[in-house]
Parts: sequence; C-alpha cells; structure tokens
Amino acid sequence: MSDTAHKILEENLGNVVLIKTREGIALRGKLKSFDQHLNIVLEDTEEIRYDGATRKLGTVVIRGDNVILISPITE
Amino acid sequence: MSDTAHKILEENLGNVVLIKTREGIALRGKLKSFDQHLNIVLEDTEEIRYDGATRKLGTVVIRGDNVILISPITE
Amino acid sequence: MSDTAHKILEENLGNVVLIKTREGIALRGKLKSFDQHLNIVLEDTEEIRYDGATRKLGTVVIRGDNVILISPITE
Amino acid sequence: MSDTAHKILEENLGNVVLIKTREGIALRGKLKSFDQHLNIVLEDTEEIRYDGATRKLGTVVIRGDNVILISPITE
Amino acid sequence: MSDTAHKILEENLGNVVLIKTREGIALRGKLKSFDQHLNIVLEDTEEIRYDGATRKLGTVVIRGDNVILISPITE
Amino acid sequence: MSDTAHKILEENLGNVVLIKTREGIALRGKLKSFDQHLNIVLEDTEEIRYDGATRKLGTVVIRGDNVILISPITE
Amino acid sequence: MSDTAHKILEENLGNVVLIKTREGIALRGKLKSFDQHLNIVLEDTEEIRYDGATRKLGTVVIRGDNVILISPITE
Repeated sequence: MSDTAHKILEENLGNVVLIKTREGIALRGKLKSFDQHLNIVLEDTEEIRYDGATRKLGTVVIRGDNVILISPITE
Repeated sequence: MSDTAHKILEENLGNVVLIKTREGIALRGKLKSFDQHLNIVLEDTEEIRYDGATRKLGTVVIRGDNVILISPITE
Repeated sequence: MSDTAHKILEENLGNVVLIKTREGIALRGKLKSFDQHLNIVLEDTEEIRYDGATRKLGTVVIRGDNVILISPITE
Repeated sequence: MSDTAHKILEENLGNVVLIKTREGIALRGKLKSFDQHLNIVLEDTEEIRYDGATRKLGTVVIRGDNVILISPITE
Repeated sequence: MSDTAHKILEENLGNVVLIKTREGIALRGKLKSFDQHLNIVLEDTEEIRYDGATRKLGTVVIRGDNVILISPITE
Repeated sequence: MSDTAHKILEENLGNVVLIKTREGIALRGKLKSFDQHLNIVLEDTEEIRYDGATRKLGTVVIRGDNVILISPITE
Repeated sequence: MSDTAHKILEENLGNVVLIKTREGIALRGKLKSFDQHLNIVLEDTEEIRYDGATRKLGTVVIRGDNVILISPITE
C-alpha cells in the first residue's frame, strides 16, 4: 500500500466507506480497522445487492486478497 | 489479520456468524475456531442458497483462501 | 489449518464427508486422507450435480488449493 | 513494472486515467498515487457501468492484484 | 500431496483416470506421469464435453495449478 | 519467459500486437515496453469488443499477471 | 514439470499442438519454444472459437500461469 493509500484509509477510520470484492459483493459500513494487506473490519455494514436493495450485516471482517476497491463515502 | 479482526473473531467464538466464500457460497453457523489465514471451523452450519432456502451441513471446515467475509450475526 | 480443523478431519477419517470446490463441484465420499494444504483423498465418492443427481467416481484425489469447504455428513 | 510503465504513470499523476479491474469494474479518475504493485489511489472517480452510465465514487483505493489495465485519458 | 494421494496415483500409472480442471474441462485418459504439483501427462485422452460427447486429444500435458480432481476409473 | 519469447517481444517493439487478458479483454496497440513478468505498455491502443467494435484507449499499462497471450499482428 | 512432460514437449518442438487457457481460449499452432513454467511460443497459430470457427494469429506468446493443457495434434 502506498503512503497515500495508507493516509486516506487512516483519515477515514470511523467514516463510512464502500468496498467492492470478488464475487461481485458490495458493502457499505464504518471503517473500523485495516492492515497493509487490505484486510478490513467494517461496522454497521450493509450489503448492497445488484438491484440497489440493502441488507444489514453489522460488523464484517473482510479478507484483503479478495478486495478490489475501497472508497470513502462523502456526502 | 489486524488485531481488531482477531479480537472480533475471538469475541465471537461460540456465536453464530455469516461467511461468504468464492463460488457464491453463503454459510451460517457457530464459530468454533479460526486461524490467522481465516481458515474457519463452523458448527451447526446451514448453507444459504441464492433463493434464501437453507440446508443443514453440521460441522464445516472452510479454507481461508476462498473466504471473502465473516460477519457475526447479532439479533 | 487450525488444531480444531485438523482434529475434526482426523476424527472423520473413514467417515463420509461433503466437499465443495471451485468450479461448483460437490463431492460426497469416505475421507481416506488429508494433508495440511487440504489435499484430500476420498473413496466411494459420488459427484453431486446441481440438480441433485449423483454419479459414481470411486477414489478421488482433490487438490487443496481449489477446496472451499469440507463437512462431515452425520445422519 | 518496467521503467516505461513507471514513467508513464508518474507523468500522469494528477491526470485522468481509466482503470479496468477483475469483476469487470471500470473506473475513471484523477491518478493521485501508485506503487510498484499497481496499488492505485484515484480522486474524483466515476465508476463506469456496462451500459456507459456513470456513478460518482470520489476517492478510491484500488488493490493492485486485481488491476488489469491503466490508461491515461487524453482529449 | 499426502503419501496416500501419491500411492494412489502411482498405483494407477497406465490406468485410465478422469481429470477435472478449472474452466470446466473434463478429460479421460491413461495416466502416464505426475509430479508433486499434480502436473499430469495423460495418453489416449478424450475430452468430455458438458453434453457427454467426447473428442480425441491423444497425449495431454496438464498444468497442476488448474487441476481440481483426479479419479481412477474402475470398471 | 523463454529466450524465444523475449526475442519475439523485443523484435516487435514498435510493432502492433494483440493482447488478450483475464476478464475477456482484447487490446491491439503498438508494443512500447515489456518486462519479464509480461507487464506491458502499449501505445495507440484500441480495445476490441466482443462484437468486433473498437474503442480508442491511447497508452495502456497492462499488469502481466492477468495477460493470457501476446501476438504480433503481421499484415 | 515432470521429465515426461518435458520430453513430450521437447519431442514436439516444430509440431502442431492444441493449447487451452483460462478464459476459455483454445489455440492451435506449431510449438516453437516452452520453459519450465509452461510459458509457450507458438507459430502459425489459429484461435479456435466455441463454434469451431478459426482466426489466424501467427506467432503467439502465452503466459504459463494461465495454461490449462497442451496436447500434440497427431493426424
């Protein structure tokens, strides 16, 4: 992870992020922790289905290998 | 695995978790053990099919490589 | 593999297990051997197709890399 | 990464690039940072859907493993 | 590969085996050689299509990484 | 990469090549650089869609891991 | 690669082989070179589409990681 990527994730601890993984999974939740392999913990997470419907998941541990992107949500 | 991820999994030993893996498999079962590669053992496991139907699997050993996410189920 | 996973597999040597692999393959057979990479040998194996139909395969050597889950069948 | 690839990415810091990843994801955004593993940070990012429709994502951290190509957009 | 897997493959040198690989390819041929990475050489090989139709391939070198299972055919 | 592969790519620097990658992407462009991992830089690149339609991409950096084949175009 | 696999490929230098790769690509061409990772160079190559139609590609460099099988064509 570049310093810039690390800084962005660190600045967004506690903020809501969008994560997309392999198998077409999309998650939106509060960034609780991350490590250099992009292993992630989210809180208050929702899974976003293809049709835009959501489903509450709460706390989620995500394996970094399968992460494609992480994007802070700013509104 | 970050310390936070480890702590969450440790706190949820014996609790019911949702696991999603490659090939679109979803499992719900009691977290019996895990290691740092996210190799997981569940008990009293159900496989959840795409249409929401479930099928009892009992004890399941899951290879960490293929795990995408783990989420404790809190109701 | 955690000690718990190892113990479960060891206790089920000779018992029937369900194995799911990449490419959506499901197998049911007697657990003959395993190693720490989840390379598996089954005997008296049946492949289970999507529609539930089965096909006899006999002895099967399975590459651990492509294993998603192993579940002892208890009836 | 070859010296040429590195030079192209360095010259395009701050410019808009197209990125395609595994799972068929296409992103267009300003190249903020990259490292030798092709881990990327984009800003002012839009996700481009199959039908050409776009969706604003803002800042995006992309895992290099899953990147297929990066192309500076010059108009 | 466990000792058991090695022994089974060794005992079946010259016998007909079924091999399934990534990308849904199924092959049936005489086991000519194998190594510890499950790189395989088959002779008198037939590819088996989804509909059960077969096509003669003769000698086939198979990359172990992409092998899912090997099963001796006993009739 | 074998010496032969290296020699072919070196001889084709500046020539138009076809590249196919994972996710079914096909690109045609001038070979600007490559390294031993098959990381590639193309110039004046066109993406070729399934239906044969093309789309201009200009310069493209391609991650070698996801490259399946490279073929010089000779007309 | 086993000695047998190496010998088969060496004996078939200059002969026509069929190669199948990830993403369902099938190629038929003269085996020009190979290395121990199954990186391959073919000449006078044709891509074979799903419907059996072919398309001339000439020389092709194939990344070994994505090769599933190689089969000499003997007629």
